[in-house]
Amino acid sequence: MFFEGSEKKVEILVHHEQLSLLNDLSDDFWSELVNRCHAQILSSIRNEHCKAFLLSESSLFVWDDCFLILTCGETNLVNSVEYFIQQLGVDKIKHLTYQRKNEYFSHAQPSCFGDDIKRLTQYIPGKALRFGAMDSHHNFVFHQDNDFQASIDDKTYEIFAYQISEDASNHLTRPGLQANDIRQFLRLEQLIPDFQIDDFVFQPYGYSVNAILAKKYLTIHITPQSDSSYVSFESNINLIKLVPIILAVLQPSSFDLLSYNETEFEALTAINVPNNYVSQSLVQQKLTNGFLVNFANYILPKQQFIQATEFDIAGENHEL
Amino acid sequence: MFFEGSEKKVEILVHHEQLSLLNDLSDDFWSELVNRCHAQILSSIRNEHCKAFLLSESSLFVWDDCFLILTCGETNLVNSVEYFIQQLGVDKIKHLTYQRKNEYFSHAQPSCFGDDIKRLTQYIPGKALRFGAMDSHHNFVFHQDNDFQASIDDKTYEIFAYQISEDASNHLTRPGLQANDIRQFLRLEQLIPDFQIDDFVFQPYGYSVNAILAKKYLTIHITPQSDSSYVSFESNINLIKLVPIILAVLQPSSFDLLSYNETEFEALTAINVPNNYVSQSLVQQKLTNGFLVNFANYILPKQQFIQATEFDIAGENHEL
Repeated sequence: MFFEGSEKKVEILVHHEQLSLLNDLSDDFWSELVNRCHAQILSSIRNEHCKAFLLSESSLFVWDDCFLILTCGETNLVNSVEYFIQQLGVDKIKHLTYQRKNEYFSHAQPSCFGDDIKRLTQYIPGKALRFGAMDSHHNFVFHQDNDFQASIDDKTYEIFAYQISEDASNHLTRPGLQANDIRQFLRLEQLIPDFQIDDFVFQPYGYSVNAILAKKYLTIHITPQSDSSYVSFESNINLIKLVPIILAVLQPSSFDLLSYNETEFEALTAINVPNNYVSQSLVQQKLTNGFLVNFANYILPKQQFIQATEFDIAGENHEL
Repeated sequence: MFFEGSEKKVEILVHHEQLSLLNDLSDDFWSELVNRCHAQILSSIRNEHCKAFLLSESSLFVWDDCFLILTCGETNLVNSVEYFIQQLGVDKIKHLTYQRKNEYFSHAQPSCFGDDIKRLTQYIPGKALRFGAMDSHHNFVFHQDNDFQASIDDKTYEIFAYQISEDASNHLTRPGLQANDIRQFLRLEQLIPDFQIDDFVFQPYGYSVNAILAKKYLTIHITPQSDSSYVSFESNINLIKLVPIILAVLQPSSFDLLSYNETEFEALTAINVPNNYVSQSLVQQKLTNGFLVNFANYILPKQQFIQATEFDIAGENHEL
């Protein structure tokens, strides 16, 4: 069974003097916002700075002045943005960023990036860029075009891993696998000691985890099935420094690194990306909203021929 | 303006004692067969063995016992197969192979490979395989499951080039470009001396050429626009030996080689693929119909960061 792990993502900063996302909005509001894109809230954790919702398709994080929602599968995330605007007014939004990864099965999606930004720009004028070549992994980024300027301290890191090793895929698709097994497999204790954790094991496959510590967050989403494996990491802690551990665990044939405002991207990747990987894409762009975005895709060159993959004609493997 | 260059391809061998494709079927038949998939015949050339039709979307070659049709864009090639079967009966078919490359814009396609083979298997039982990883360039191959066994002399070679150099893209998108300029640019005289040639320059961009010599054929289709460039070669002459010339001309960031029944694939690629390219995929499979299929994707590792690509929000760039 295939599942589209690739995420769409929205980050909305609000005018904090007008609206406190943590105090002024109920869980029912967030639940409805999530439902609008055809996902559901499964559980949540919170601390004094942040509320983290685990979703049927990925995650929602709410801070006082900002929220971040990532959704995978066949969700239509622009619906959720539209709901936010309709309920609270577009004037509450200080800055919006919408990001979308290319999909494994884009023909099964309810919209393409072009459709999404046609809808978004009905409310919010903006600019759009693509990071990475059309014929390999790439991310589209749309951002509001206003006088907002990002702080250089506002850093975000993303890792997307593809074609994880057979060992990793076998481990993560074992029947009866428990959340605790996966936490240990991912070495979460080593990656994020002391973080508060909320996780979920999906049936028959799949795992999501939200982790928070004060204003810090990490979210990991795993689609482990061997033919379309995908593991995503997103955090405001420096994931590039964790690349050696993450690669040792997942051993992917290919992975992307994407960062916002990491000025040492080139130096950090030189140290942390093992040199058996080579770069398929290297993109750097300073956005007009002040964010410096770096994107790199790496692949592990193949030395050996493998057999072709059987396509299940009768089954459902070619559809989500 | 984006155009989907990636092709679908059907090869049908007929029971020659029952049906001569060259003698028993008129040009009107082929014209209608082509129309069914939403393409048109533009021109044709012929010799005593082969008739080659240049199409609005790629090419059709007809030999006495076999025909081969490749179509790009948003064509629905299974319609043409269905027309052939309805007009002549499925019993005339000795063997059918259907191949489909992953697309740049699969969400804009009228069908996915799964849809296609659901339709084909209503008439023809078969098997399907994928060559190449889901998250990088790949080709699906469906073939009829009957007692047909391919001759080892029945060899086919395909090259797909992506992200051709800026120089090549600029040259091939020059206003007022003539067919003869493109023939010279592609070094056709060196690649296929003495072949009879039929070619077409599309507006605003694009070029197709069919070339035949006795039973030999070569077809090249160029989508030159820089952001979604794609150049395909298909032939029964050994294209792997021509890789050095083709790469020198196009300088692609990535390319695929695919062959049927080339038993020296590994040795030939070792000699002819420059070692600044690395393998992203290497797949080898002997099909039950006797064809040995090899697939390899190569990329040119990047050393330098480039800027992100602007996405035209208002325009039509994100749709075909």
